[in-house]
Amino acid sequence: MKNQIEQYFDRLFPLNRSLTGNGVRETFSILKELVDFEITEVPTGTNAFDWTVPKEWNVNEAYILTPDGRRIADFKVNNLHLMGYSVPFSGTMTFDALKEHITTRPDMPEAIPYVTSYYVERWGFCLSHNEFLTLPQEGEYYVKIDTTLEDGFMTVGEAVLPGESDEEVLFTSYCCHPSMANNELSGMLALAFLYQLLKKESKRKYTYRFYLAPETIGAIYYLSQNGMRFKEKLKGGVVITCCGDKGDYTLKKSRSDSYFNSVFKNILSAKPYKELDFFPMGSDERQYCSPGFDLPMVCFTRTMYGEYKEYHTSADDKSVIDFTALEDYVFLLKELVDSIELDDYYENQSPYGEPQLGKRGLYPTLMKIEDRGESLKRLLYLLNYSDGKHSVLDIANKMNTTVMSFQNEIQSLIAKDLLKKKDHV
Amino acid sequence: MKNQIEQYFDRLFPLNRSLTGNGVRETFSILKELVDFEITEVPTGTNAFDWTVPKEWNVNEAYILTPDGRRIADFKVNNLHLMGYSVPFSGTMTFDALKEHITTRPDMPEAIPYVTSYYVERWGFCLSHNEFLTLPQEGEYYVKIDTTLEDGFMTVGEAVLPGESDEEVLFTSYCCHPSMANNELSGMLALAFLYQLLKKESKRKYTYRFYLAPETIGAIYYLSQNGMRFKEKLKGGVVITCCGDKGDYTLKKSRSDSYFNSVFKNILSAKPYKELDFFPMGSDERQYCSPGFDLPMVCFTRTMYGEYKEYHTSADDKSVIDFTALEDYVFLLKELVDSIELDDYYENQSPYGEPQLGKRGLYPTLMKIEDRGESLKRLLYLLNYSDGKHSVLDIANKMNTTVMSFQNEIQSLIAKDLLKKKDHV
Amino acid sequence: MKNQIEQYFDRLFPLNRSLTGNGVRETFSILKELVDFEITEVPTGTNAFDWTVPKEWNVNEAYILTPDGRRIADFKVNNLHLMGYSVPFSGTMTFDALKEHITTRPDMPEAIPYVTSYYVERWGFCLSHNEFLTLPQEGEYYVKIDTTLEDGFMTVGEAVLPGESDEEVLFTSYCCHPSMANNELSGMLALAFLYQLLKKESKRKYTYRFYLAPETIGAIYYLSQNGMRFKEKLKGGVVITCCGDKGDYTLKKSRSDSYFNSVFKNILSAKPYKELDFFPMGSDERQYCSPGFDLPMVCFTRTMYGEYKEYHTSADDKSVIDFTALEDYVFLLKELVDSIELDDYYENQSPYGEPQLGKRGLYPTLMKIEDRGESLKRLLYLLNYSDGKHSVLDIANKMNTTVMSFQNEIQSLIAKDLLKKKDHV
Repeated sequence: MKNQIEQYFDRLFPLNRSLTGNGVRETFSILKELVDFEITEVPTGTNAFDWTVPKEWNVNEAYILTPDGRRIADFKVNNLHLMGYSVPFSGTMTFDALKEHITTRPDMPEAIPYVTSYYVERWGFCLSHNEFLTLPQEGEYYVKIDTTLEDGFMTVGEAVLPGESDEEVLFTSYCCHPSMANNELSGMLALAFLYQLLKKESKRKYTYRFYLAPETIGAIYYLSQNGMRFKEKLKGGVVITCCGDKGDYTLKKSRSDSYFNSVFKNILSAKPYKELDFFPMGSDERQYCSPGFDLPMVCFTRTMYGEYKEYHTSADDKSVIDFTALEDYVFLLKELVDSIELDDYYENQSPYGEPQLGKRGLYPTLMKIEDRGESLKRLLYLLNYSDGKHSVLDIANKMNTTVMSFQNEIQSLIAKDLLKKKDHV
Repeated sequence: MKNQIEQYFDRLFPLNRSLTGNGVRETFSILKELVDFEITEVPTGTNAFDWTVPKEWNVNEAYILTPDGRRIADFKVNNLHLMGYSVPFSGTMTFDALKEHITTRPDMPEAIPYVTSYYVERWGFCLSHNEFLTLPQEGEYYVKIDTTLEDGFMTVGEAVLPGESDEEVLFTSYCCHPSMANNELSGMLALAFLYQLLKKESKRKYTYRFYLAPETIGAIYYLSQNGMRFKEKLKGGVVITCCGDKGDYTLKKSRSDSYFNSVFKNILSAKPYKELDFFPMGSDERQYCSPGFDLPMVCFTRTMYGEYKEYHTSADDKSVIDFTALEDYVFLLKELVDSIELDDYYENQSPYGEPQLGKRGLYPTLMKIEDRGESLKRLLYLLNYSDGKHSVLDIANKMNTTVMSFQNEIQSLIAKDLLKKKDHV
Repeated sequence: MKNQIEQYFDRLFPLNRSLTGNGVRETFSILKELVDFEITEVPTGTNAFDWTVPKEWNVNEAYILTPDGRRIADFKVNNLHLMGYSVPFSGTMTFDALKEHITTRPDMPEAIPYVTSYYVERWGFCLSHNEFLTLPQEGEYYVKIDTTLEDGFMTVGEAVLPGESDEEVLFTSYCCHPSMANNELSGMLALAFLYQLLKKESKRKYTYRFYLAPETIGAIYYLSQNGMRFKEKLKGGVVITCCGDKGDYTLKKSRSDSYFNSVFKNILSAKPYKELDFFPMGSDERQYCSPGFDLPMVCFTRTMYGEYKEYHTSADDKSVIDFTALEDYVFLLKELVDSIELDDYYENQSPYGEPQLGKRGLYPTLMKIEDRGESLKRLLYLLNYSDGKHSVLDIANKMNTTVMSFQNEIQSLIAKDLLKKKDHV
C-alpha cells in the first residue's frame, strides 16, 4: 500500500489548493480514483451559522520583476510564493512600498512561509528570508498578480460506507493547503486509503462517513447540514491531520469524555504516544467540539500541528514524510474500526461459579504448573466480566491488552453457548 | 499458640488429601478438636450449577518397580508421587511407554511435582527430575496402582459462630491438597486457629461462618446451597491460603468495591504489603466472585500462590513455614474481626461548635504548648467527623491510623453522652 | 500600605489582650480607625451551645520579689509573664512552693512561654528558662497578683460591607492573644487592611462580613447568633491567622469540598504553597467546620500555627514579621475577592462552530505563524467552554491560569454580544 500512497502523493503535491478554486477540484478528481466521493459545490454567499462561504479564488500567474531583471516569487515555481487569496494587481513600485507586501521567516531563512488573507482583501508575496536579502533597495519593481476573486463555489466531498445500525462514525480531513506535505497532504491520503480498507469489509455495524473540505468554513458548513443529526447519532469521529512524519502518535481527546477517547487509549496503550486534553485551538475539532455540538471527535496526529519546525512553510515537503509511518497510521485507524466493530456487551450464560471449561475442551485436563497461556486468561476474563456491565473494551483494559486480542476467544465462547451478546434496551 | 499450630501441622501434613476420600475425612476428624465443624457428605453425581460432584478416590498403594529392581515413586514414601485421581492399573511396560505417564520438573530437579487429573480418567506418576534421570531405558517396568474411583462422597465442613445481626462473614480455605505445607495446609490451620480466637468472644455483631472443602467444586457446591443468601447477607469474606511463609502480606481485592477491601487497607496500612486488583485466576475467589454472585470476598495471603518457587511441588514442605508468621496472620484476621465489630456510624450529640471537653475532664485545663497527644486528637476527630456520614473506619483513615486505636476514645465519649451510635434506617 | 500596617502594629503590640477585658477594648478602639466595627459586649454567663461566656479578667499589676531583692516576672515589662486568667493572690512562699506556679520552656531558654487557664481558676507566672535558673532556692519569695476576675463582658466586633446578593463571605480573626506578633497580631492587621481595600469598591456581588473576637468562645458565640443563616447563605470564608512571616502560604481546606478551596487553588497555583486537608485541631475553623455547621471556611496562613519555633512564646515578636509579606497576604485576599466577584457562568451566544472573530476585529486577518498570544487563547477558551456548565474559574483552571487574567476578554466578548451571563435558576 505504501508505494501506492507515494504515487498519489506525487500527483497531488503540486496542486494549488486553497479554500476554493480549481486546485481543490483537481484534487478531488484524483482522489475519486480511491474514494467514491459525492462532490458538492457550495455557492459563494451561502450562510453557515456565523459564517458565509467566500468568493472563489483562482490564479493564473503571479511574480515580481526586480530592478536588476530577475523574476522572483513566481507562483509557477512554488505556489506558496503568492499569499493565499491575493487580489489581482499589477504595477510598479519602490522596494519600500513592496516590502510591506512581503512576508519572510528570518528564523527559517531557507523556507518560504505560508500565509493567507481569506477574509480581508489584500495581496502579498512570501519569500525565503535569504532571497529577500538579495533584493536591491533602489530601482523599480514590477508586480504581476493575475488572479480572480469572484462569486463561485466552495468544493466539498463526502463518501459513505453504510452499516447495520444508524450510528455513525466520521473521518474527516481538509484540502485547503497548497504544496505542503505533512500539513496537509498526509491527511487526505490517510483518509482515502482508510476508505479503501473499509470498503472491502462485507459487513459493518456502524455507518462510516468520510468528509473532505477546506478547514474551518468547510467543517462549519458540514455542521450546518449534519450537526444536529450528529448530536444524536455520532458514535465518534477523528480529525485526521499531520500523520505522515516519523514522530510518535498524538491523541487530542474530544472535549467531553467519549468512547473514542477510550478506544484510542486501548489501541495505543502498548505504543509510545502523547495524550492531550482538548483545547480550543488547532484544526476542525474546534468546530466539531464547539459548545453547541460538543461532538465526540478526537484529533489524531503524529507530530502535532505547530510542533514541528517545518510546519506552515515550504520546508514541509516530501522530505518530512515517511511512507511507512503514514501507512502505519492508516492501519491504526483500521484497528480502531475493527475494535469498535468487535466491541460489545456480552453476558456469561453460566454466571454462577465458573462454567466447567474442561468438559468443553477449553481447559487443560491435566493440572500441572505450566504456562496456562494468555488465551485461557482471556477466556476467564471474558467469562468473569461479561456481566452486561463490562464491554470487551473494559475487559481488555483490565487485562492491559487490546480489544482485538479477544477475537478468537469471543468466538469460542459463543460457539459453546457460554457467551451471548447483550440485548440492548 | 504457635507451638500448638506446629503440633497440628505435624499431624496433618502426611495425610493424603484430595478432592474426595478418606484423607479428607481424617483431616476433618483432627480439625474437629479445634473447630466445631458440621460435616456434610455430598454424594457423587450431585449437581452444582455447571458442575457434578465426581467419584470418590482412595488409594491403597502405588509404586513402580524398575528393571534394576528398585521400588520407586512409592505413594507411601510421598503421596505426591501418584498423580491425583489416578485410575487403578497394574502391568508391565517399557520405559518408552512408561515415560508418557511420568511428570517431572526439570527446572526444579530435586522436587516432585504435584499433578492431578480430576475430570479425565488416566493414571500417572510424578518424580524428581534427578530420580527420573537414573531410570534405565531398557528392560521391563512393573507398575502397580491400587486405587478405587467409585461412587461415594465429597466431604465438606462448616462451622458457625452466631452473632446479633443476620449479616454474615465468611472465612474459607480448602483441603484437597496432599502433603504440601504453604499451599495448602497453612490455610486450614489459620482458619482453625482463627475460629479458636473468635469462639472466646462473649458477644458478636456479625455471624461468622468457617467453610472448609476441596477447591473449586467445594466452593461451587457451597454457593449452590448458600449463594443467594450470601448475595443478601454477606458483609464480607476471606479466602485464606498460602499464609505460612515469611513473605509480606498480599491482598487480592474483591471483584467489586467492598467494605473488606477498605478494612484490610486500614489494618495493613502500616505494614509492607502488596495490593492486587481482582483477577479471575487463582483460588476460590474465582467462584465467590463469579458474575452471578460477585460476593465481597477477598483473597488474603502472604506470598501469593504461584509466586514462590516451591509452589505445587514436594519442596513446599515444613521448611517453607514460619510458625510465627502463620500466627501473625491469624492475629491479623482477628484484628480484621475486631475492627468490623468496633466500626460503626456514630453521631456527635453536641455538634454545634466543639463541645467543651475541659469541663468533662477530657481536655487539659492549662493551655501550654505540649504534646496534646494522639488520644486528644482521636477525641477531636471522632467528634468532628461523627456526623452519621463517616464511620469509625473513615475517621481512622483520615487520621492515618487503625480502627482499633479508637476503642478507648469511643467509650469515653459515649460515657460522657457526647457520642451515640446512629440508628440505622 | 505596609508602612501604615507597621504603624498600627507598633500601637497594638503592647496591649494586654485576653478572652475578655480592657486590652481587647483598647484594641478595638484603635482598629475602629480602620474598620467600621459594631462592638457587642456579651455578658458573663451568656450561653452559646455547650459553652458559657466566662468572667471578665483585668490586670493591675503582677510580679515576684526574690529573696535577693529583685523584682522579676513583672507584667509591666512583658504581659506574657502572668499566666492568662490568673486569679488575684498576694503572699510569701518558699521557692519549692512557688515553682509549682512557674512555667518555662527549657527547649527555648531565652523565651517566655504563653500559658492560660481560662476555665479552671488558678494563678501562675511564665519565665524564660534562663531567668528561672538564676532564682535562689532558699529564702522567702513575695508574690503579688493584682487582678480582677468578675462578672463583666466579652467584647466582640463585626463590620459589614453589603453587596447585591444575599450571599455572604466571612473574614475572621481573633484578638485574645497578648503581646505576640505573628500569632496573633498579624491576623487582626490583615483583616483590617483587607476591609480598607474592599470598602473602596463601588459595587459588590457578595456581602462581606469581618468578625474579630476571642478564639473559640468568640467563634462559638458568633455561630450561636449567625450559624444557621451561614448554613444557608455563606459562599465561603477565611480564618485569617499567622500571616505576617516570610514563609510560603498554607491553605487548610474546608472540611467539605467548597468553592473557596477551588478559588484559593486557582490564585495560589503559580506560587509555592502548601495545601492541607481539614483537620479538627487548630484555630476557629474547628468551630466553623464543626459537624452541625460544616461551613465552607478555610484557614489561610503563611507558616501555620505550631509550625514555627517562636509560636506561643515571647519570641513571636516584631522580628518574626515581614511587613511586605503581610501586605502581600492582604493583596492575595483581595485577589480572592476580585476573583469571586468576576467568576460566573456565561453562555456563548454563537455556540454552533466558532463565531467568526475576524469580522469583529478579535482575530488576526492575516494568518501567519506567529504567537497568537494568550489573549486570543483566552477568547477561544471562553467561547468554547462558556456553555453554562463551566464557570470562569473552571475555564481558568483548564488554561492553568488565574480567573483575573480573563477580565478584559470577558468584557470584549460581552461588548460583541458573543457572551452573556447565564440566568440563574
